[in-house]
Amino acid sequence: MVSSRSAATARSQPVQLRRRGPVLERAILDAALEQLSTVGWNGLTMEGVAAAAQTGKAAVYRRWPSKEELVEDALRAGLPALGEAPDRGSVREDLHHLCKLMRDAMYSRPGFALRAVLHECDSLTAERFHELILSGVIEPSRRLFGEVVSRGVRRGDVRPDATGELLFDVIPALMMYRSKVCASDWSDDEIAMVIDQVVVPLLRPRTG
Amino acid sequence: MVSSRSAATARSQPVQLRRRGPVLERAILDAALEQLSTVGWNGLTMEGVAAAAQTGKAAVYRRWPSKEELVEDALRAGLPALGEAPDRGSVREDLHHLCKLMRDAMYSRPGFALRAVLHECDSLTAERFHELILSGVIEPSRRLFGEVVSRGVRRGDVRPDATGELLFDVIPALMMYRSKVCASDWSDDEIAMVIDQVVVPLLRPRTG
Repeated sequence: MVSSRSAATARSQPVQLRRRGPVLERAILDAALEQLSTVGWNGLTMEGVAAAAQTGKAAVYRRWPSKEELVEDALRAGLPALGEAPDRGSVREDLHHLCKLMRDAMYSRPGFALRAVLHECDSLTAERFHELILSGVIEPSRRLFGEVVSRGVRRGDVRPDATGELLFDVIPALMMYRSKVCASDWSDDEIAMVIDQVVVPLLRPRTG
Repeated sequence: MVSSRSAATARSQPVQLRRRGPVLERAILDAALEQLSTVGWNGLTMEGVAAAAQTGKAAVYRRWPSKEELVEDALRAGLPALGEAPDRGSVREDLHHLCKLMRDAMYSRPGFALRAVLHECDSLTAERFHELILSGVIEPSRRLFGEVVSRGVRRGDVRPDATGELLFDVIPALMMYRSKVCASDWSDDEIAMVIDQVVVPLLRPRTG
């Protein structure tokens, strides 16, 4: 037997998705990430993103005048934040954990999407996305790396003069190089190798 | 007064450039490098290269069926060879010299052209040129790096257990990273900083 409520529901209009502000923006950014994973940079269109977000083109263009700006914001919002500097009792453990955080960011779905975009887009557009890797992953990890090293100095794990920019470049440099040249995917074992063979020896107090 | 020789010259046909074999191939490869420097990967055409080499299109296509193969050969032929492992009396001096050789290769005109091509071409084509950086610059320098380190072990400059692939990655990784991220052009001072702050400490015998 059909109740009066369900009959009324059956007669009523389909529910309109009317979202506003941050909720709508989040839906658009998620749709952009989803489009990147399915059709890539070249296949992504503002119309396609609008459809995937179940909204109109105008709602997208109003906030993001261009594909580049939309994709940049989607990736930036999607990349995992690195969080606080890990404190696990020794500089070796702290560094190991920090490297895993960096790896997880670069190998997250947005991290993959970011690197795929870099591959597909022209070099002028690519600058915008290189900048995103810098500000979204590399600079935050340099800062955390610095905190881990300072804590190590206070603990006596690390020699007091272990400063200098180059030291902070070694980890991201090796990560970028080995993914590109050796197709490394930065397994936990490989991270351990880099920390133990290269980074800890550079930091440890000199004996004798 | 016009001499009979100059009158005869004035009446004769213009000199035909008829080159064969390696001479013609060298002219075509040089013309390809020249085209890369002026109009870049996108602007380079087989016709343009033929014209710059003062030869016919057929002569180019006969040897290089595609633009990719022509440009790859031109860059490979143009990149400076690294030569023998330097022997300058200490591992620090040897490494410093080796880094300068690598820098001079990557910052030579063909080196610049190679990196410009990587920027302009699509990712499938780019794999061919990444491979060229690997086989033309990076693998030869890893080999030379290994020889320098072995000599250092024999001399006592370097601890006997300084082996392991990662060590050999640190220099090219830092070079690639710092050119990309810091727009470093690898001055002699910067090379010295990397050797002294990062590489020599990783190699030196442990005291105490």
